[in-house]
Amino acid sequence: MAYELFYWSPIQGRGEFVRLALEDAGADYRDVARIDGDGAVSALMEESSTPPFAPPFIRDEDVIVGQTAAALFYLGPRLGLAPDDERPRLWTHQVQLTIADLVDEAHDVHHPLGIGRYYEDQKDESARRAEEFRSERLPKFLGWMESVLERNPSGPEYLVGTTTTYADLSLFQIVAGLRYAFPERMTALEGAYPNVLALAQRVSERENIAAYLKSERRIAFNTMGIFRHYPELDGSR
Amino acid sequence: MAYELFYWSPIQGRGEFVRLALEDAGADYRDVARIDGDGAVSALMEESSTPPFAPPFIRDEDVIVGQTAAALFYLGPRLGLAPDDERPRLWTHQVQLTIADLVDEAHDVHHPLGIGRYYEDQKDESARRAEEFRSERLPKFLGWMESVLERNPSGPEYLVGTTTTYADLSLFQIVAGLRYAFPERMTALEGAYPNVLALAQRVSERENIAAYLKSERRIAFNTMGIFRHYPELDGSR
Repeated sequence: MAYELFYWSPIQGRGEFVRLALEDAGADYRDVARIDGDGAVSALMEESSTPPFAPPFIRDEDVIVGQTAAALFYLGPRLGLAPDDERPRLWTHQVQLTIADLVDEAHDVHHPLGIGRYYEDQKDESARRAEEFRSERLPKFLGWMESVLERNPSGPEYLVGTTTTYADLSLFQIVAGLRYAFPERMTALEGAYPNVLALAQRVSERENIAAYLKSERRIAFNTMGIFRHYPELDGSR
Repeated sequence: MAYELFYWSPIQGRGEFVRLALEDAGADYRDVARIDGDGAVSALMEESSTPPFAPPFIRDEDVIVGQTAAALFYLGPRLGLAPDDERPRLWTHQVQLTIADLVDEAHDVHHPLGIGRYYEDQKDESARRAEEFRSERLPKFLGWMESVLERNPSGPEYLVGTTTTYADLSLFQIVAGLRYAFPERMTALEGAYPNVLALAQRVSERENIAAYLKSERRIAFNTMGIFRHYPELDGSR
């Protein structure tokens, strides 16, 4: 049976990290909300004995796995996108969890006061939070990813080991999202992270990823998702 | 060799979730920063080929595992605090990752504009974020934990299965932290989550946990940690 991905239909959001893994592997999968509607996502959360706190989650027969990084931890070996051994597999997961932390912070830039208010009702606070994100947090996260590549004993081509993992695909998504949301800042910063940028580029050229990015299955970045382009939150510094 | 826990010495913080597991299991462990100083934490991050992004992290011989939930995922089976089978083990991990999300939000209540500014420089914004946390987020997280207990096919005594896991210990820590930080709000809310409260109580009475909580190894909650008691952020609603 096909894997099922449950995530809200109008945005890439956190679901995109799972979608990229499924697409890269050429997996048979159903993007449930885009076929059956968002109600199907809520319904499964209501009835499961292992209820996900929030989408995205996946279903594989009778196994349901929520939390983006945990879903990828589950799918990784099954899709050929994770190392075989426990130790590098857990390291891949740690990288993914750190990427998830960056995603949370990228979201909080436009919602510092919480998700219950519109961005328009917290613009001033967002501008203040964005300063720190651009000047401190973004370089810290990108610098960490660069150091992970530099310190990979097998060389800087992959985050872990000598083959593509779901973490590499997620790194591509991070770079794409940050470039969409903070084009000025990323232009100013990118030169400092050559290995990160090169890996993102290589991922974008992978056959299945390149085909996916050109397809209608790839939702465009927009100002409903996690990475949002608000020019007033961007800047070269 | 003993496990080593690396975390900043003056606070419970995220390190406490790992410490509770080590303490409950009666494991031989070194609390590195409290013995060798915080510099030992930074030093290992600088030199590792699998560098943690931030503490806490653990070292087990030559394995280093960062990200709180991943460290517990690694330690759980070794300490007898995780299920044997893959599926419930991954479910335990999902519960822990959701607890980690709550911890992040509990932190952001007093730092909505980012970690670079003191609380005193973002008090007004904190008060606004705290409203949503108290009225929406806290009930949502506690309600989810209550439903996890209610839906456990083995009964509501444990979050997963029929034995104590590290997630149960973490639930205790969440309840303790929330009661410290938001005493008025927790008093108003607690009646709605009887299974959560009963589990927290049972954990506090476990022999090794009870001894630990009375020991000097248990750092007191304080206003440098994640759960902070600022009366102006609390309230019955």
